[in-house]
Amino acid sequence: MAKFVYDFTEGNRHLKDLLGGKGANLAEMTNLGLPVPPGFTITTEACRHYLTQGTVPDGFEQEVEEHLAALERQMGRTLGQADDPLLVSVRSGAKFSMPGMMETVLNIGLNDESVHGLVKQAGGNDRFAWDSYRRLIQMFGKTVLGIDGDHFEHALDTLKGDRQDTDLAAAELQALVETFKGIVREQTGHDFPADPREQMRQAVMAVFDSWNAPRAILYRRQERIPADLGTAVNIVAMVFGNCGNDSGTGVAFTRDPGSGHQGIYGDYLQNAQGEDVVAGIRNTIPLQDLERLDKSSYDELLAIMEKLENHYRDLCDIEFTIERGKLWMLQTRVGKRTAAAAFRIATQLVDQGLISLDEAVTRVTGDQLAQLMFPRFDTGAEKKKIAKGMNASPGAAVGKAVFSSERAVELAAQGEEVILVRRETNPDDLSGMIAARGVLTSRGGKTSHAAVVARGMGKTCVCGAEELDVSTSERRFTAPGGVVVTEGDVISIDGSTGEIFLGEVPVVDSAVVEYFERGGVLQEDGRDREGELVRAVDRIMRHADATRRLGVRANADTPEDSARARRFGAQGIGLCRTEHMFLGERRQLVEDLVLASGEQERQAALDALEPLQKADFIGIFRAMGDLPVTVRLIDPPLHEFLPDLTDLSVKVALADAGHGEVSVKDRELLTAVKRLHEQNPMLGLRGVRLGLVIPGLFAMQVRAIAQAAKEVPGARPEIMIPLIAAVQELEAVREEAAAILAETGVDALIGTMIETPRAALTAGQVAEAAEFFSFGTNDLTQMVWAFSRDDVEAAFFSRYLELGIFGVSPFETLDQEGVGRLVRLATEEGRAARPDLKLGICGEHGGDPGSVRFCHDVGLDYVSCSPFRIPVARLEAGRAALSENDSDSR
Amino acid sequence: MAKFVYDFTEGNRHLKDLLGGKGANLAEMTNLGLPVPPGFTITTEACRHYLTQGTVPDGFEQEVEEHLAALERQMGRTLGQADDPLLVSVRSGAKFSMPGMMETVLNIGLNDESVHGLVKQAGGNDRFAWDSYRRLIQMFGKTVLGIDGDHFEHALDTLKGDRQDTDLAAAELQALVETFKGIVREQTGHDFPADPREQMRQAVMAVFDSWNAPRAILYRRQERIPADLGTAVNIVAMVFGNCGNDSGTGVAFTRDPGSGHQGIYGDYLQNAQGEDVVAGIRNTIPLQDLERLDKSSYDELLAIMEKLENHYRDLCDIEFTIERGKLWMLQTRVGKRTAAAAFRIATQLVDQGLISLDEAVTRVTGDQLAQLMFPRFDTGAEKKKIAKGMNASPGAAVGKAVFSSERAVELAAQGEEVILVRRETNPDDLSGMIAARGVLTSRGGKTSHAAVVARGMGKTCVCGAEELDVSTSERRFTAPGGVVVTEGDVISIDGSTGEIFLGEVPVVDSAVVEYFERGGVLQEDGRDREGELVRAVDRIMRHADATRRLGVRANADTPEDSARARRFGAQGIGLCRTEHMFLGERRQLVEDLVLASGEQERQAALDALEPLQKADFIGIFRAMGDLPVTVRLIDPPLHEFLPDLTDLSVKVALADAGHGEVSVKDRELLTAVKRLHEQNPMLGLRGVRLGLVIPGLFAMQVRAIAQAAKEVPGARPEIMIPLIAAVQELEAVREEAAAILAETGVDALIGTMIETPRAALTAGQVAEAAEFFSFGTNDLTQMVWAFSRDDVEAAFFSRYLELGIFGVSPFETLDQEGVGRLVRLATEEGRAARPDLKLGICGEHGGDPGSVRFCHDVGLDYVSCSPFRIPVARLEAGRAALSENDSDSR
Repeated sequence: MAKFVYDFTEGNRHLKDLLGGKGANLAEMTNLGLPVPPGFTITTEACRHYLTQGTVPDGFEQEVEEHLAALERQMGRTLGQADDPLLVSVRSGAKFSMPGMMETVLNIGLNDESVHGLVKQAGGNDRFAWDSYRRLIQMFGKTVLGIDGDHFEHALDTLKGDRQDTDLAAAELQALVETFKGIVREQTGHDFPADPREQMRQAVMAVFDSWNAPRAILYRRQERIPADLGTAVNIVAMVFGNCGNDSGTGVAFTRDPGSGHQGIYGDYLQNAQGEDVVAGIRNTIPLQDLERLDKSSYDELLAIMEKLENHYRDLCDIEFTIERGKLWMLQTRVGKRTAAAAFRIATQLVDQGLISLDEAVTRVTGDQLAQLMFPRFDTGAEKKKIAKGMNASPGAAVGKAVFSSERAVELAAQGEEVILVRRETNPDDLSGMIAARGVLTSRGGKTSHAAVVARGMGKTCVCGAEELDVSTSERRFTAPGGVVVTEGDVISIDGSTGEIFLGEVPVVDSAVVEYFERGGVLQEDGRDREGELVRAVDRIMRHADATRRLGVRANADTPEDSARARRFGAQGIGLCRTEHMFLGERRQLVEDLVLASGEQERQAALDALEPLQKADFIGIFRAMGDLPVTVRLIDPPLHEFLPDLTDLSVKVALADAGHGEVSVKDRELLTAVKRLHEQNPMLGLRGVRLGLVIPGLFAMQVRAIAQAAKEVPGARPEIMIPLIAAVQELEAVREEAAAILAETGVDALIGTMIETPRAALTAGQVAEAAEFFSFGTNDLTQMVWAFSRDDVEAAFFSRYLELGIFGVSPFETLDQEGVGRLVRLATEEGRAARPDLKLGICGEHGGDPGSVRFCHDVGLDYVSCSPFRIPVARLEAGRAALSENDSDSR
Repeated sequence: MAKFVYDFTEGNRHLKDLLGGKGANLAEMTNLGLPVPPGFTITTEACRHYLTQGTVPDGFEQEVEEHLAALERQMGRTLGQADDPLLVSVRSGAKFSMPGMMETVLNIGLNDESVHGLVKQAGGNDRFAWDSYRRLIQMFGKTVLGIDGDHFEHALDTLKGDRQDTDLAAAELQALVETFKGIVREQTGHDFPADPREQMRQAVMAVFDSWNAPRAILYRRQERIPADLGTAVNIVAMVFGNCGNDSGTGVAFTRDPGSGHQGIYGDYLQNAQGEDVVAGIRNTIPLQDLERLDKSSYDELLAIMEKLENHYRDLCDIEFTIERGKLWMLQTRVGKRTAAAAFRIATQLVDQGLISLDEAVTRVTGDQLAQLMFPRFDTGAEKKKIAKGMNASPGAAVGKAVFSSERAVELAAQGEEVILVRRETNPDDLSGMIAARGVLTSRGGKTSHAAVVARGMGKTCVCGAEELDVSTSERRFTAPGGVVVTEGDVISIDGSTGEIFLGEVPVVDSAVVEYFERGGVLQEDGRDREGELVRAVDRIMRHADATRRLGVRANADTPEDSARARRFGAQGIGLCRTEHMFLGERRQLVEDLVLASGEQERQAALDALEPLQKADFIGIFRAMGDLPVTVRLIDPPLHEFLPDLTDLSVKVALADAGHGEVSVKDRELLTAVKRLHEQNPMLGLRGVRLGLVIPGLFAMQVRAIAQAAKEVPGARPEIMIPLIAAVQELEAVREEAAAILAETGVDALIGTMIETPRAALTAGQVAEAAEFFSFGTNDLTQMVWAFSRDDVEAAFFSRYLELGIFGVSPFETLDQEGVGRLVRLATEEGRAARPDLKLGICGEHGGDPGSVRFCHDVGLDYVSCSPFRIPVARLEAGRAALSENDSDSR
């Protein structure tokens, strides 16, 4: 028979799937001999049964009853026993911590009788007993019965007046209980349940049901947590922090989650229950001060913290309660930390001999490394923090507050640096967002329009700063404490922390970037800025490089970018775009090409471009030495090099009406632009199609590449044909290119982008004509989803994130189910057809931490990304190799 | 050991894979006891070995030598024997007839000695012998040695002067042989090979090599013939039609390929070899007249033809030669026929008891039925045919010839009907093609721009009429015989036959369409126009309907189209688009919707649309009775309902400059159009995205559908959500729609289009939320290939057809390798998730004969197509069901 309930003595920390995170760690601590109140855990399996079948499994209630009876025997009291009640807390705990789910109901077992028994237990402390009772009704009412918490808060506030909650007398609290019971009756039409077992039963079911609360569903979608895991429920004997001044409750970290340094970090609140610390209803005291209040508990806590850190081999965070001088551990888990702390802690633990370097690499993430590469506010500087919002897009931005896009554009045009402040943004704010250094909103979460677009632009953004009262019409916002910021006032926003500061905070460049810019070597004199951090990064990067299987190349198309890419550790160029080489002054030549009326004129335009192209390639080949350089032949539609249809039409129409003048060439261009105008240029004449329709265009590029390679000893060009959908297209171009290479005596691989679904679906055929594939996952994502990346800022995109249709933009992180399925299929079928086929990826996903692991898993040879993302990709590639067999890591 | 050579007595007609079509049928006739000259066939397997390995297989030459020796023994002569030579022909013959391959070399075995032996054999007819010799050198030089045929033609023409070839004397032909040998020496640097076995060897290798001639490769790509089949080679003892007036050669049909009627159809040419009939160097005589010339051979031929037709149970075409009064059969095959003949012959053969009705259905094609549904020229009318081109897009068009697009547009605007005549068309001719009734070009094949675009538009087109000399600058063309057509002259073109007529030819509606318009019933009085044909169609359609498994629905969105669809046999509506319901006068309401500044204004605009939508649906439901009607919620981007950005920008800019006026609404619209402007609307805010972004839009449509269904008893609406890429999109809309249905008490399936690759790739998930899938293969093709259907007319598309990158536009016939793979995958995974999932297709492919079979094979429940294609789809569905186990049929 299935077992649905585990005593804390039966579990351990590896059973998170079954017992949830909280339950597994309570069991672990119990087995370590730490002072955990007795209790048991109802498994996620029971929850899953309830959610799918609509009822609890057979025998479930009996099993719970047996465990409760055992708990009662152990405690020598029965649940809600009138004269000497056992009270319990009911706490949810899923595998992954999940806001949006019901969390905790304390003090279950109290009713009008047992409250008197609690008075007795507490040595006549009737204030404590009634306080506990009102807390039960309040929490139960809110989380189990679904009553709006404001009703209770309002009644409590009315009673308190200006006093603190600890100032309330027992009689007052007793009256409050009656008031609260009235609220329950009024709001639900039923009395508050007096039966202790019924209280517990309802609370357990409420935890089960909360798995499917809308907020929980949304959160899971966004975080890509499977919808069918279910949650566990922990039933724990109550211990009380609210028995008087010899009691209290607190949270602690085994080391500083901000810096990683060892020491005493935490907060303590006397005479309080757990939720009071979080709610911030009274001021907490620093954990150190507990030594003064209760030396024995303090020493015991420190010893336990050391034991936990050595046991978990990582920073732990802890919840504890002291009941009349007795310490109880209520929760522990591996604690969150800042990016810098993550690197420091990982290497510190290596030095302490607690973990290996392998493990250290898996303890840090590419996202954390990326955060360390942004400029940040000077930690030493004086700062006036006025509010905090959500850290939507990292970076540190300083500028004058402006409240409209128009004003942002206007001031930016005058050379001013501005921060665009809006209640929320919409597509009309795009120009303002582009003009601003950073974006600040008072509404909307990490998937709001502002957040999504800012991340897409790499622009600093703090969103959802709800403490701010923004008035765009009055061009000002008000922060807590009455601070008013009006248009033109300078503010500073930290996109990595969500903090908002008044005035200019000095910004410092990233010491980690400086390290990478030096080619990833430490200063010989050991005087690196932020030396501890940089040395930690250095150790971890070296080990990641030593262990990774995936190569890392760069997307770079200038000698400067190529050189930087090399310094940052690129093992070649995976994507050298040739489009920019047709812009600027050369646009003129492209116009000649388009306007060419015959073979001769066209060839003349191409001949003029060839030496320029050759020079471009020489520069890049020199920068890359003997590393491979994959050059993509020209991809985008011709009209991108031409004037805009609407602008030119207006200009010509006005000239025709006698306003202004246009040249003959402008008129010719308008005809050409009209001819080339496409409804959907992304789906039009571009890539290989251009090469097949304009004779000589690709040949000119291939010749320039070959000639350049001849002049740079050791150069290793690779020629990449863009946007094929059928092997026949590739064959046609390949033949011409191979002939030119043979003629020049240059050796180069010829391969193709896989960026249309059809190229992936027919990869077996395509591989017959390609020596390498490079997945162009930007285009592939566009085609697979049927939406244009150019139009990502369109209204529907942020709406989709809000609706949870995707948790993250598929242009940021590779969509494994759709796009990824094609990548996998093409990899398998391409390799089957040509076993030595080289495989890479060169979409933006190549530098995205969440996507690099997929690339590793699917067996690609390399990822290619922008130079600044190279360290991130190297680290993630190392992590992927190290955690290959660790399916549990997320 | 493998066998690479088959004597004619060893093969049979079922061995086409191995012996090719010609060899298999020669063997069949030999075994039927018909007078076939002895010979043998070299297999396609030998050819494949040669093509892949570069050499003939081991033992191959010996095997050929043995068969040749056997032939020599049988004939009592050796190949090229000086005093009494055996001569042979070498004829290629692949499984599928393939222009572009080498076809035939006659008279192999002749040289300067054996020519005298041939004189002796022919009883001293030296003219015949020298004529045969010069033919050998000419054909061998051209097809085996690759010499430009003009060299020989020129020498022959010079010699003939005004005479016919039969007027040439023996001495003249002998001199011509010397001239031809000189040409060979000059063009190849080698003498014409005198060794008979060497002649034969070279000819066989040349046939092998011709498999990979560029034209053959191109042809295979276009016709989708596998590239690795190889060709067989037939070695046949020569018989001579050029021995004098008691000899000759001819072609014949066992019944009229134009009408299907039984009778004597064919042509005969006295004193000639095979190629002379085709080349048309002298006038042939009708086959009937052979009776007068050679009654015995004539009677024998008729008996053989009857025997062949009964044996093949189909119309056969035949090549024969009479050598001094003795009849020889050189080839037979199942003959091509017109569409009308195909239907008539199929039912006639049923009546004759030769084939079953099942087989009759497989003997006709959807393409043939489609041809019968076009209006055609009155067969009884006087016609002046002036030239013939390629039948590029069927139909009969009459109009004034015009030679430029501008003129076409101009005259069409005046209400004139015009035919656009061009040397070839390019994208600039698009407006002219739209304005014209038909298009005629003198250059380019069936894949040229004119042909592709015309077919896409359903416009009549004759292309590549190379006999015409078109001068666009002089606005006229000249036809053979000096006929000059100048601008404004009326011409008539037949897109089904490629014929071009001077003047107006009366057009008659299709009798087959009349039959379908009557609901597919014959007139009670039996007086149907073209009664024999209509009765044949009726029998075949009834049997196709009785046997097919695939349902056929219509794409229709008006009551009129719905009613016609029903008459044409639709079993429901598979795609009712709602877009047109927002056009016309209602455009105003859409503008209000777009300009709505708040919830209230938006709802007002929707409320105004709802009763109009409801009325739309009532009309359609009434027309369809109790058949299902799948309504697709609105799909295209909003801006399609708004004015054009460029036009409106110009208008406003001109007004600002003081030219003309614009309303306030126009200015508001311009702002909105700019806001909604997308780079790639096909990949933008459309389909389900619109529904999720504009609250209330889909709800309004669903409510209108439900309300309409309540008013029409028996109505069976199905609601289809367009353009989803993730199941979450479907879930969001489904929930809202289901609530409205429940509220109204209307029962309707809710399903989705599968038209993005991602919807197909995640079909298992999507099926959890969809009761049906309808594959939108138009969009799916766009996304899979990454090109826009709107831009199909773009330059690259016809270029791709020319390059053979696709043999047929993937928008015409479903691309099975790319798009089809996704359809198959989604079908399998969708059904696995929901076994009763209904599956259909509603792209244009639903009515394409080549795609219907795929839909049947993949296991769809129905295809949906435009009303006029319904009979075609019904027929093809029947054929697919009947030929399920017949993998050989193409």
